[in-house]
Formats: sequence, C-alpha cells, structure tokens
Amino acid sequence: MQVLNDDDRAYLSHSIRLIDDFPRPGIVFRDITTLLNDAKAFEFLMSHLQARYENYEIDFIVGIESRGFIFGAALATRLGVGFVPIRKPKKLPYVTISQKYSLEYGVDEVQIHIDAFNHIKNPKILLIDDLIATGGTAKASMELIKNAGGECVEACFLINLVDLNGYQEIEKFTKVYSVLEV
Amino acid sequence: MQVLNDDDRAYLSHSIRLIDDFPRPGIVFRDITTLLNDAKAFEFLMSHLQARYENYEIDFIVGIESRGFIFGAALATRLGVGFVPIRKPKKLPYVTISQKYSLEYGVDEVQIHIDAFNHIKNPKILLIDDLIATGGTAKASMELIKNAGGECVEACFLINLVDLNGYQEIEKFTKVYSVLEV
Repeated sequence: MQVLNDDDRAYLSHSIRLIDDFPRPGIVFRDITTLLNDAKAFEFLMSHLQARYENYEIDFIVGIESRGFIFGAALATRLGVGFVPIRKPKKLPYVTISQKYSLEYGVDEVQIHIDAFNHIKNPKILLIDDLIATGGTAKASMELIKNAGGECVEACFLINLVDLNGYQEIEKFTKVYSVLEV
Repeated sequence: MQVLNDDDRAYLSHSIRLIDDFPRPGIVFRDITTLLNDAKAFEFLMSHLQARYENYEIDFIVGIESRGFIFGAALATRLGVGFVPIRKPKKLPYVTISQKYSLEYGVDEVQIHIDAFNHIKNPKILLIDDLIATGGTAKASMELIKNAGGECVEACFLINLVDLNGYQEIEKFTKVYSVLEV
C-alpha cells in the first residue's frame, strides 16, 4: 500500500531487533536483519516502497554501502530501473567522484562512478539507505549524485532517528521519506 | 528464461565492463556496475535467476558482503523469500558464528547471525555472490550456513573465473551454478 497506517508501522517496527550497546556502550542498535530474514515483513516493506515509487518516473536507484545495497537493489528490480552503488573509497574500479564528510570523530568519504548515469538524459534518482542519523553520509551522497549529473527526487530511509535531526538537514536539499521514526 | 543460450550470455557479458590493473597490476577486474545501472540487462539477469530458482523451494537467500547483497536481495524479493547477509567481522550486531579462511596473503573471516534461519524448520538456502575465484569466501560461507542449521541447496555466482578452479572446489559440497564463465 502507498501509505502506511500505525498498525503497518508497528508490524514493521516489531520485525526490527533492538541490540543494546552496539557498536558502542549506550547505543541501541536497530538490527534490520530480523526484518530481512522474515519473508512476510520483507515483502510487506518492499511492496509498500514499490507502491510509493511506482509513479515517480525514477531512472536509477542509488544505494549506499552496505545495507543500502539490500533495500536499493530489491526496490530497483521491483521497479525495473537501474541500480547504482555509492561505496567507500577504493572499492569502485572505474573513475570515481569523491565526497568527504565529517563524523563525530574524524572524516569519512564516499564515491560514485563518474559515468553512472551517463546513458540517460536528465536522470532522476531515488537515494536509499537503511537509516538516517545525523545525515552526513546522505548529504555527501546527494552531492555525489548532483556531481554525476543526476537529480535526486527523493531520499528514502527505512528508519529515521529523529533526535539526530538528519531528516531536517537532508530536507533542505530534496524531498525525504522515512518508513519508521524512532 | 530458465536456461540461457550463447546470445543471452554474450548480451550479459557485454554489459560488464573490463577494468585493467584493478585492484592490482595484471588483474582484469569485471565491473558489474555497468550491468546494474543498465535497467534492461539487470532485469534480464534477474528474470533469468527468478525462473531458475522459482521451483527450488528455497527458504532463504544468503548474500555475501557487499556485491552479493545486491544480487541476493534483488532475487529474494522476486522469489518472496527471506534474505540473510554474511558479513565481515564486527558488522553484525547480534551473536554471530565466524569462519576464517585463507587468502593469497593472510587470513580473512566472515560471519553470520547464529539465529538467522531459526524460525524455519530444515531451512533450504541458496548462496549468492557476484563472482567465484578461488572459492575461499564461498566455502567459508557454506560452513557458516551449515553451522547455523541451514542446508545449502545451490551456490550461484554471476561470474566464474574458470582458471582459478573455485567452482570445482565448491562443487564438492553443493550444487553450483554460474551465469557466465570467463
């Protein structure tokens, strides 16, 4: 269905396992592997995303390494569009565009192939990742999409960690959608 | 279609870009991103895999980080089955099973969640990765599947590097299928 109600969201939410103190003490990690290995929950999520994006006229789905690959590739094959990976440095074999971004401690970097969208004119992109926290990776990814000649029509996240305000940060640049807010 | 002919394989093969000297001098890397961002080629591959595995009565698809996530998750959602990731150490948040394996220089390790298949009895698994070379990662992954209580009914690779004999190594333990041989 195109729009989820509270029961739908509760169902998906319960399929995600909470892990205390991962990767660091004090953090409650959302383990989406329990959603993925539950065929019904995975199908429920993917059919929702398919219904939402069917009429967006998207040309490519861009997924962010690694969990974004899972949801992004699954949705791409359901919509019949191409899939483009954004990866950590030194993983993509052809000429890349890079974007650095700040972490809590230090700097990280993501890359995209420079010609990823070249065979389609005015390519429309849907960006996907499993989770938005501070939005650093997503913002860097939108820069990569723009610099590779794409237009990001929406950024989609399974989970929005609302206290970290990444959603609002990304909303300055594109439409944003998150399936679950926690 | 369930079985590919030479023209089908040539079509898919041409959608894969060859990159000289990546990641090291002397290596010709198969860049599958040009297959993934080509909506027609990606759909052609995925509909072939769906047709092949539709009647296998698979319960889970296991994909190996990171490129195996792309093909594995896409096939899982087309078949309506659960997806289980095999990851590098320290990536999976819950209790894991680990398997070490030898590389050309040194040792590497992969992990799976200990309860990944627990909610289905006698779970049947399809293992997926983009490429089989010496078969080290695939063999370690089959150990993980077995130790997590699963039965690997087939291992599927997009590309088989035939000179490296990984296919034959894996065939000692399970059925193997590769879409392309190079």
